[in-house]
Amino acid sequence: MPETMKAIIKTVAGYGAKLEEVKIPDINDNEVLVNVKAASICGTDVHIYEWNKWAQSRIKNLPQILGHEMAGNVVKTGKNVKNIKEGDYVSAETHVSCGHCIQCLNGQKHICSNLIILGVDTNGCFAEYIAVPESVCWKNSPLIPPHIASVQEPLGNAVYATLVEEVAGKTIAIVGDGPIGLFSTAVAKACGASVVFFVGLNSYRLELAKKLGADFLINHDNENAVSIVLEKTGGYGADVVMDMAGTPGSIDDCFKMVRKGGRFTAFGIPSEPITIDYTNSIVFKGLTLYGINGRLIFDTWIKIREMLESGKLDISPVITHTLKLEEFEKGFDLMTARTKVCGKVVLIP
Amino acid sequence: MPETMKAIIKTVAGYGAKLEEVKIPDINDNEVLVNVKAASICGTDVHIYEWNKWAQSRIKNLPQILGHEMAGNVVKTGKNVKNIKEGDYVSAETHVSCGHCIQCLNGQKHICSNLIILGVDTNGCFAEYIAVPESVCWKNSPLIPPHIASVQEPLGNAVYATLVEEVAGKTIAIVGDGPIGLFSTAVAKACGASVVFFVGLNSYRLELAKKLGADFLINHDNENAVSIVLEKTGGYGADVVMDMAGTPGSIDDCFKMVRKGGRFTAFGIPSEPITIDYTNSIVFKGLTLYGINGRLIFDTWIKIREMLESGKLDISPVITHTLKLEEFEKGFDLMTARTKVCGKVVLIP
Amino acid sequence: MPETMKAIIKTVAGYGAKLEEVKIPDINDNEVLVNVKAASICGTDVHIYEWNKWAQSRIKNLPQILGHEMAGNVVKTGKNVKNIKEGDYVSAETHVSCGHCIQCLNGQKHICSNLIILGVDTNGCFAEYIAVPESVCWKNSPLIPPHIASVQEPLGNAVYATLVEEVAGKTIAIVGDGPIGLFSTAVAKACGASVVFFVGLNSYRLELAKKLGADFLINHDNENAVSIVLEKTGGYGADVVMDMAGTPGSIDDCFKMVRKGGRFTAFGIPSEPITIDYTNSIVFKGLTLYGINGRLIFDTWIKIREMLESGKLDISPVITHTLKLEEFEKGFDLMTARTKVCGKVVLIP
Amino acid sequence: MPETMKAIIKTVAGYGAKLEEVKIPDINDNEVLVNVKAASICGTDVHIYEWNKWAQSRIKNLPQILGHEMAGNVVKTGKNVKNIKEGDYVSAETHVSCGHCIQCLNGQKHICSNLIILGVDTNGCFAEYIAVPESVCWKNSPLIPPHIASVQEPLGNAVYATLVEEVAGKTIAIVGDGPIGLFSTAVAKACGASVVFFVGLNSYRLELAKKLGADFLINHDNENAVSIVLEKTGGYGADVVMDMAGTPGSIDDCFKMVRKGGRFTAFGIPSEPITIDYTNSIVFKGLTLYGINGRLIFDTWIKIREMLESGKLDISPVITHTLKLEEFEKGFDLMTARTKVCGKVVLIP
Repeated sequence: MPETMKAIIKTVAGYGAKLEEVKIPDINDNEVLVNVKAASICGTDVHIYEWNKWAQSRIKNLPQILGHEMAGNVVKTGKNVKNIKEGDYVSAETHVSCGHCIQCLNGQKHICSNLIILGVDTNGCFAEYIAVPESVCWKNSPLIPPHIASVQEPLGNAVYATLVEEVAGKTIAIVGDGPIGLFSTAVAKACGASVVFFVGLNSYRLELAKKLGADFLINHDNENAVSIVLEKTGGYGADVVMDMAGTPGSIDDCFKMVRKGGRFTAFGIPSEPITIDYTNSIVFKGLTLYGINGRLIFDTWIKIREMLESGKLDISPVITHTLKLEEFEKGFDLMTARTKVCGKVVLIP
Repeated sequence: MPETMKAIIKTVAGYGAKLEEVKIPDINDNEVLVNVKAASICGTDVHIYEWNKWAQSRIKNLPQILGHEMAGNVVKTGKNVKNIKEGDYVSAETHVSCGHCIQCLNGQKHICSNLIILGVDTNGCFAEYIAVPESVCWKNSPLIPPHIASVQEPLGNAVYATLVEEVAGKTIAIVGDGPIGLFSTAVAKACGASVVFFVGLNSYRLELAKKLGADFLINHDNENAVSIVLEKTGGYGADVVMDMAGTPGSIDDCFKMVRKGGRFTAFGIPSEPITIDYTNSIVFKGLTLYGINGRLIFDTWIKIREMLESGKLDISPVITHTLKLEEFEKGFDLMTARTKVCGKVVLIP
Repeated sequence: MPETMKAIIKTVAGYGAKLEEVKIPDINDNEVLVNVKAASICGTDVHIYEWNKWAQSRIKNLPQILGHEMAGNVVKTGKNVKNIKEGDYVSAETHVSCGHCIQCLNGQKHICSNLIILGVDTNGCFAEYIAVPESVCWKNSPLIPPHIASVQEPLGNAVYATLVEEVAGKTIAIVGDGPIGLFSTAVAKACGASVVFFVGLNSYRLELAKKLGADFLINHDNENAVSIVLEKTGGYGADVVMDMAGTPGSIDDCFKMVRKGGRFTAFGIPSEPITIDYTNSIVFKGLTLYGINGRLIFDTWIKIREMLESGKLDISPVITHTLKLEEFEKGFDLMTARTKVCGKVVLIP
Repeated sequence: MPETMKAIIKTVAGYGAKLEEVKIPDINDNEVLVNVKAASICGTDVHIYEWNKWAQSRIKNLPQILGHEMAGNVVKTGKNVKNIKEGDYVSAETHVSCGHCIQCLNGQKHICSNLIILGVDTNGCFAEYIAVPESVCWKNSPLIPPHIASVQEPLGNAVYATLVEEVAGKTIAIVGDGPIGLFSTAVAKACGASVVFFVGLNSYRLELAKKLGADFLINHDNENAVSIVLEKTGGYGADVVMDMAGTPGSIDDCFKMVRKGGRFTAFGIPSEPITIDYTNSIVFKGLTLYGINGRLIFDTWIKIREMLESGKLDISPVITHTLKLEEFEKGFDLMTARTKVCGKVVLIP
């Protein structure tokens, strides 16, 4: 085993990151060392890469290796590790929970009061190796290849967000054309949604949504999403709306296109407080609204394994680019470009 | 049977109403005529009485008899009426639903797309008689006296709002000291809430909340409700918050005092759109938020009958005044006074 | 409009029925008259046709027209009918509920204490016309042709039975190769089940199950269903089992093939009490078991409309025979033959 | 710290146990050592004490210390222990789960496929000290005294069994007068049940049920429980039935006294398979049946802490005897006596 490895590391506060040769991480008694086979780029990685306001306030200890979505093989295990062995093919839940706060005790580990987030609070997976606590290791099905397995974490957001209540036989409006909106489209259709309206800004992404099964593609630039959804649902609005864009406009649209007694999934995160017609949009509508952060641990992961392994769910069209780790700048460029011509970008160390 | 009756009627657009002798209402084939034994005053009645903006835009046909919360005896039935007979002791659900919109077909009649509201869209119950569609008649338990039975409709708001998710073993913060907040306090305690924080502005109402079982009384005028709730819940916040005040401040407090993964019941109705820290208060908190309007028809009514009849729930302290119908002005004065020295006011025709 | 019509009618207690020319039914004020375009044969019709024990004790008033699953056009409406008009294309929920028993008041009309069943307690739809209470009329989507629309009622059994809890990402074992088992297979796969095990006795029906998406076909005659399900689920058993055969053996198999903490849907109806290893199969397994009778009114019907209309669900392979009303004997022969070489049989008046 | 301790230990296969001085248990890296302050006797302990068939087949390694319900103080912690410290006042969940089977991954640890049960598979707590894995330690509220805290584990059975679905405003029939039936009575009343029917065989226990809030006491010896429940519920039956006796007769009664669409909680464990009128009692009734084993970990524990700490739930009348550890034979005699004149018996080491 070598002593050093390639890693995409942010060394100074500012835009970008560098490929460097660094020491392979040590593991503690409760961790395993994973040889990364594929790692996908998340919007969070882009924020840290770009060093935006959020990243400046959130990232405490530079230098730091980026990345948190991955699949790979375990090459070493700490002495307290019980259920994971060398050679296991794993991915990782990135929300590391404390186990004793009120959420943890209530089956809500994903919103633990003392969350540590892999690749945000710790060194990440854009590297040949990463140290991962056993408690968040997920044994992958051998039938799921690494580039697909690496996106299970963000796919988990989509699965949780979409299936927080039943979608079978329901009309769903998904607003936001990022990877989670795309994943959610595939999940909703695989799980019985009768009609999916997909609202985006970008023709490349709309095209992807079509491949994933969206029934109506609405280009927000030149179409009125609210009118279309209302018209196609007999004036009622959709049974379920999912905001995955996180802008004041997208959220407002969602409130307008959900029917009375419908469900609103809040996943996108606007950067400022927003103004809501609370009385009419929430109270009189008898709305049920779910804030979604993370994934259920591990209920959501099991659903994903089952649906990917059986072929019930095919999200491969979302993975539009598979690059070598060394090509990370190209990957980040794709993700930050104004005109999105990518879905999910996967790096191969 | 006489031909005329006493009724509190609004004849002209403007403040107030008058006691007049008017014709006893005709009933159609699907209605019953009820001899009103008790009728309670709702905030909605006060809005119509005061003729505020909402009332000006909502009330279409003057003259109109006020009131919609009542209990009484059926004295006549239309020819299509099947399940209600002369002599039945009834109250009325006030949300008259169409039966064929998507909500009605989905078990959500209370938020029907074509709602007609008794006493708002039709002549009301502050009178000796009222015509009520059979479809909203509720047979009262003979063990529940009229002045209690008359408040089942607003009590239904509280029961639905409080029990929309389980409260057993949970900490609950109720913000808003109106009758629905008071009823909710009693319901939460009767149904297993471990701790109820009751937040109000008014010492008379706080005193009532104490009688109903509230564990902590917080006077919003001179105490910091958010700090107190956080402190008493180990810094987590309450499992459940219920906004029953409907002001920007009360709603903001609720978002601050609910724990991660908690439940927010939205019942109060602010008169203007409000600004919400959606990202932190909803998404990152993993919040579940329920807009509550009306009551489940008739699931909620059954719960109420069961709990009142068995003595499991005692809401009698909320009914602070029982007046003759002729004393309606005193009743409305109590309800509109700046310093609330009343709970629920019941009129006896 | 003619005065008489063709109808399949049972005139005497004993095997079979006859095609006769009878008077077109009168309707009362709350009913509509439907010109039947398609009517499908149910197992219940077969019981009445064969005049088995159950039928002898249940059917009170001969002569009676058979049949209860249908689609057709409204040609006349009673004077109290509000939401249905002449020309409407409708099917019928067959469970006519009282509206005032505890189940009806609790959103469980389908198991009303005072149920009247169309075609069992009343004259049925194997005829050119049928009288239907407005309260059970269902407006069909014009996109669903009559032979498909006529099977919505039994499809509703399957939709309710299958979706009583979420199936997305779950493994499902369906035991019983009748039409409801076949429908359930299609529903489970359309709504995200990862793997469906279909257990039957009959190769024709197993072939149908394959067309409907079943992942594993198990011929009970020569294969051990329990072993196969356990083996394919890593020894755990299926997340969900659905008994749709109703024999002591099928039920026993279901208890053995469901995993700890799984769900058991009980739909099939054994003719005698059965013996269950209650302690190990129910208590220690932490099982959840749902008895399923009928469909949710009208929650299930909406799901069906949405899924059929959108093409999300295709159950057309189940309808293997479409015969003229006059050919009813051939239809019943197909249904009663020992070697089932049919799925659902539809009669066209 | 001493090296030996008093313990109630079964040394040979056969009736009874002995008080002996034995070595204080060693702890491994993941365990804590608890100085037991109170330990209560469970029916399972009685089975082992009596050495019945079940015990003979289940208990593998004698000698073994009995007992699994307890409260005490941590005096030593293993080196991997993170959340528990010396001095912590704890009780223990007795279902030690593997963390990686399908139930564990799905939030159903209490029915783990690889369960180890404290005091059954390991040395127990009828001793001055017990070794407990950190993963099942529960930090007690200091407001709950040891004799109450020690019964939280069986109380957890009652809380889970009773609250598996909402009880607010519902009628509940509890059949079985053991401690879990008694606890369930208190829980149901504390959580809003309108009426509790308590069915038992023993006047002492019926008297206890009365103290705990039961509305109707039914002595099975000389009263017909089914008739009484049907009569008092207007012929419908109870909304919820809970079998906590586990005999063919009690289970049969439960099926007969539950209303259509009601809920059946199966907790008692008959020693032989039983015969059920599955078609009428389950399918046509539209019943929902829950097998209950253990408690939700730790959702149930939180509810208990909240309800005991706040005084919402008072189960102290159930604890009828508090004996010294040395008096264990008296305790077991009370529990095994034909005429039960005890509730829960607590031993104080």
